[in-house]
Amino acid sequence: MTIAATTPLARLSEAMASDMNAVNALIRERMISENAPRIPEVTAHLIDAGGKRIRPMLTLAAARLCGYEGDAHVKLAATVEFIHTATLLHDDVVDESRQRRGRPTANLLWDNKSSVLVGDYLFARAFQLMVEPGNLRALSILSNAAAVIAEGEVLQLTAAQNIATSEATYFKVIRGKTAALFSAATQVGPVIAGSPETQVQALFDYGDALGICFQIVDDYLDYGGAGDGIGKNLGDDFRERKLTLPVIRAIAAADDAERAFWERTIARGHQEEGDLDQAMALLARHGALESTRQSALDWAGRARAALAAAPAGDLRDMLADLADFVVERVN
Amino acid sequence: MTIAATTPLARLSEAMASDMNAVNALIRERMISENAPRIPEVTAHLIDAGGKRIRPMLTLAAARLCGYEGDAHVKLAATVEFIHTATLLHDDVVDESRQRRGRPTANLLWDNKSSVLVGDYLFARAFQLMVEPGNLRALSILSNAAAVIAEGEVLQLTAAQNIATSEATYFKVIRGKTAALFSAATQVGPVIAGSPETQVQALFDYGDALGICFQIVDDYLDYGGAGDGIGKNLGDDFRERKLTLPVIRAIAAADDAERAFWERTIARGHQEEGDLDQAMALLARHGALESTRQSALDWAGRARAALAAAPAGDLRDMLADLADFVVERVN
Repeated sequence: MTIAATTPLARLSEAMASDMNAVNALIRERMISENAPRIPEVTAHLIDAGGKRIRPMLTLAAARLCGYEGDAHVKLAATVEFIHTATLLHDDVVDESRQRRGRPTANLLWDNKSSVLVGDYLFARAFQLMVEPGNLRALSILSNAAAVIAEGEVLQLTAAQNIATSEATYFKVIRGKTAALFSAATQVGPVIAGSPETQVQALFDYGDALGICFQIVDDYLDYGGAGDGIGKNLGDDFRERKLTLPVIRAIAAADDAERAFWERTIARGHQEEGDLDQAMALLARHGALESTRQSALDWAGRARAALAAAPAGDLRDMLADLADFVVERVN
Repeated sequence: MTIAATTPLARLSEAMASDMNAVNALIRERMISENAPRIPEVTAHLIDAGGKRIRPMLTLAAARLCGYEGDAHVKLAATVEFIHTATLLHDDVVDESRQRRGRPTANLLWDNKSSVLVGDYLFARAFQLMVEPGNLRALSILSNAAAVIAEGEVLQLTAAQNIATSEATYFKVIRGKTAALFSAATQVGPVIAGSPETQVQALFDYGDALGICFQIVDDYLDYGGAGDGIGKNLGDDFRERKLTLPVIRAIAAADDAERAFWERTIARGHQEEGDLDQAMALLARHGALESTRQSALDWAGRARAALAAAPAGDLRDMLADLADFVVERVN
């Protein structure tokens, strides 16, 4: 696997470069606050760290794929990135994270208060932006997504440390915290393009499956992605006692001694030196990482399949390839 | 002063009772989350504690005053209350508060994480609700208010502990954190009623002045409202080193020794036994509480005056009386 300009993500970035420049300019313009300089400081710290901007790119690509020729997609793409950035700020407070995108988190550099309030500001800016194009259905989709995201985060919070968490709950959590924004990002494209319902549904399904795939890969890498340079530390989820897919599957296959191990480390939180190695050994023993990888592949396949009902062309091919690319990180 | 059913607030509540019942039913319906039971638990704790619901009542009254006969004002009123409740949850995290409306705060009963995420959920629910009536101008007003609120909170955070804070900054802060939601609450009434711009402006001005008055009174009571039963402790702002109007005015009139006192207690935060008494003595020496009371009266007068351009009638009289009633707490 090469990570040169030949990756599907790079090709998509190239195809969307002009639109994405407009999105970036809009983000910079709207993150300014004359009254409270702390706001652009905190926001710039996160935005300059440069995520992949995959979510706004999905909005742009979905709109163009469906033949949209206006410029409202730029505002909706910036909306999506603002919602994402706001959730990152709040997530890092909730998870007490110290590193994000390879840099110290805002809650560490400033404080939790700033992260909470600047996150609120970005949420509000997102809503201002989404109102501007005046498309009520797009407004409804994006505001629903914001509610589902928050619901998923709360569900994750209450499911953490509970070793009885089922796969069904896991999928509810990741549909909320990750897939809801992906599917809203892709769905608003055909909506503002005025596309037929089959295409609106196709792009929703694509974003939903891609988002689920993306999160499963993320959860896989937390146990299996040493040194992949994503700025996340191996075992963070274990230390935070999160019930992710590999662990849920290992617990489902656990014998009594193993169950006692998970009970102690995840439910009671008594973790000792060597416990992460032991957890990894248990995942390996039950093929939990391999089966998680298979699930990611399965969802990538669903994402690709959903695109069958979308307009054919280069952009559709790139989006289809993007689904495979997301899973390549676990190969 | 009596607090029987003869107060302006009680008369307004009575006049709006049917609409307010619809708002309360909608709030209960929308605070539910099937997926994450923690959400209604936290929300109910705060909503059952029963604030005065003054903000949604303003939306209802402003709409009816302007002859509105539909039911969209119920959704917008619930939106306003959800935004308010979300900001309370986040404020209590930021201020590390332990008591709200005479009960332990959610961050104390659950944790900061739950308060942050449930606040986000309520923000998102607010945006879903405001989208439903499909009035783009109301959407714009309410989403702008949300941004101004967050901006005011961040500004307050960065101004705290800074004894050079000016009255101009103080008014920016309270316009954001308090008046923006009051003025949005009143302004959307004439907007959905399709009223002429003079009335839209009148109701905006009324809400703005009322909100400023309300916050000045709140800041006054923090130093002068012992035992008034509002569930706030005397001196909280002093302990949190907030630069409110009484303190800003006392600092402006301070001699060198007094300046050293404010420098130590507010800027450096070295507070000792007896400092609150000393602060109160300095406020009294410079008439800072009395001049703050005068400012509150002044803003109540502006609120009343703004209503001259609104349709005459019982509701207008009640809103005018409400402005005086807000200030009565400091008499």
